[in-house]
Amino acid sequence: MSENRVAERDAMTRALTLAERGPRGINPQVGAVILSPSGEVLAEGWHRGAGTAHAEVDALAKLSPEQARGATAVVTLEPCNHTGRTGPCAIALIDAGIARVVYAIDDPGDRSSGGAGVLRAAGVEVESGVQTEDAAALLQSWLTVQRLGRPHVTVKWAQSLDGRAAAADGTSQWITGPAARADVHRRRADADAIVVGTGTLLADDPALTARRPDGTLYDHQPIPVVLGARAIPDGAAVLAHPHPLVHRDGTNLFAERPGDDVADSLLEELRQLGVQRVLVEGGPTIASAFLRAGLADEVLTYIAPTLVGQGADGSDSPALRSLGVETIAAQRRLTVASVERLGDDLLVVARPAVHPETGAV
Amino acid sequence: MSENRVAERDAMTRALTLAERGPRGINPQVGAVILSPSGEVLAEGWHRGAGTAHAEVDALAKLSPEQARGATAVVTLEPCNHTGRTGPCAIALIDAGIARVVYAIDDPGDRSSGGAGVLRAAGVEVESGVQTEDAAALLQSWLTVQRLGRPHVTVKWAQSLDGRAAAADGTSQWITGPAARADVHRRRADADAIVVGTGTLLADDPALTARRPDGTLYDHQPIPVVLGARAIPDGAAVLAHPHPLVHRDGTNLFAERPGDDVADSLLEELRQLGVQRVLVEGGPTIASAFLRAGLADEVLTYIAPTLVGQGADGSDSPALRSLGVETIAAQRRLTVASVERLGDDLLVVARPAVHPETGAV
Repeated sequence: MSENRVAERDAMTRALTLAERGPRGINPQVGAVILSPSGEVLAEGWHRGAGTAHAEVDALAKLSPEQARGATAVVTLEPCNHTGRTGPCAIALIDAGIARVVYAIDDPGDRSSGGAGVLRAAGVEVESGVQTEDAAALLQSWLTVQRLGRPHVTVKWAQSLDGRAAAADGTSQWITGPAARADVHRRRADADAIVVGTGTLLADDPALTARRPDGTLYDHQPIPVVLGARAIPDGAAVLAHPHPLVHRDGTNLFAERPGDDVADSLLEELRQLGVQRVLVEGGPTIASAFLRAGLADEVLTYIAPTLVGQGADGSDSPALRSLGVETIAAQRRLTVASVERLGDDLLVVARPAVHPETGAV
Repeated sequence: MSENRVAERDAMTRALTLAERGPRGINPQVGAVILSPSGEVLAEGWHRGAGTAHAEVDALAKLSPEQARGATAVVTLEPCNHTGRTGPCAIALIDAGIARVVYAIDDPGDRSSGGAGVLRAAGVEVESGVQTEDAAALLQSWLTVQRLGRPHVTVKWAQSLDGRAAAADGTSQWITGPAARADVHRRRADADAIVVGTGTLLADDPALTARRPDGTLYDHQPIPVVLGARAIPDGAAVLAHPHPLVHRDGTNLFAERPGDDVADSLLEELRQLGVQRVLVEGGPTIASAFLRAGLADEVLTYIAPTLVGQGADGSDSPALRSLGVETIAAQRRLTVASVERLGDDLLVVARPAVHPETGAV
């Protein structure tokens, strides 16, 4: 690897760190580093959210016109080709006389992609695919929005080792321990919306805030969403949430067919609110509805080391209800991303497995 | 630590390795090393099974009377105080003029314990509790037999992440992958008996042998045990097992009360056959019966990364049925001993948690 290649890799690592400084929102988090022809860092930039300069423009703004000429721009995302509230970055780079652009990940947007082609047509050397995995991990939820046109959905539940959410009589609260609960709250702080059903709301009266173990609120709070026809009681804890409650009738969620209208329209509504990450917290009916509709990008199963079984009369409270699987060939295969011990409990993080032949999940 | 202490620790490690050479059976696996007063290894011994010399006597037999006088015996188990087919080891050590005895674990046997007291009364210096955990791990199933008067029972099942053994229509075979199946076969080779119900026998026609991935048989084969009132079909694969089948009516296993007579009497029958380790392989009714009766010392849950849920009509095939748990306070708490990834699958090994107040499991 030439010295300049090493400098470009280091610059990409730096650009990814810069990207994280920006807010997660409708726009992607992007970082940029401008290198001189000999590989020295000339300027750094990052995107600070919708309506502000894109990362490349932010970095270029710190340079004199002479400095940028012949330089290399290292950017975490393909420079955009879109005139929105700001002009296309590809044109800005060309106008500044940038000679080479290195980026990590292609822009999947219908309107914003094509920047690489514009750059090449203007004689700029373009290299893509540098540290793609790291950039994709950073932009996971934004990429889901771009590719699927809906927020990234994580479905979470807690269960006994044998898959029960509660005992036969329905008693259940705190099946998992404090370390697992703290992990849920960290993930709530990382989500833009939390979805629960009215059943869970009425049974547990959750605040749906993201709280540290000492009870204080995390800076970022998810929008609370409640699905179901039943009314929210006057004194419900969720009504004290910093964000106003979104309450929608979820009756049609319980229909058997996939691509359910209510789930789809709820996710579209949340997308328009700028929501990129949705955490579906249950109960079993709501979690199963999202899974059944193929709307779960990630599954979090918190497993308490306990056995519950059925009641003597065969009744039980499974963590999941119907997923539309009537025979084993229709099972929903997952890929385990990680297994973690949280105190006495386990957390299995899994994603839908891609079907080896059709590519379908 | 003095040099002799170091020599004694090394000797205990060696004695544990020697112990493993002996067969697992009604008698414990025991190893012994005789050290000179200056810490040199004089002789090694181990127990080769019922009716043969105990480890200490096996080691002493390799020495002249002069060599043993004033020496130290390092033994994995407290020297016995019992005259069975061989004389008490405590007396043999005293007669040989051994000056010091170091052992790992107390003999819990009603008739065989007390050796340490006999040695001390004769003026022999005795130290116990050296490498106790390693010795206890080696003797786990033998200790269960001594303490509880029954074989050590492992209950195993395979399930989807959400706790189903099969889809709503009952289809299930090979829910877990080849690495998990190979692990089950290794554990079969480590067991002295495998228990299945007639339901599993009729559905899957298992051979109940312990096989390597290439299909060849392991040297040690568990005794196949089938529980249930239904007849074994003439051509059943289990009838070709190297050991004759034990077939018992398991009807009373399905009773709700713990300490079930049939499970107890089956375990007593197996104990008399020299069985120390029983692997209960299911199906759900049999596994649940052993769990409900409090007769599971270890639980193996093989988890396939797949979701099955219920059928549209609410029917399902859970991995476990009634455990006698009607309310969450009665749940069967476990302690997770290990979590392992086996190919795409997970194996959770757990043991009953000891109740913090009563000591009950």
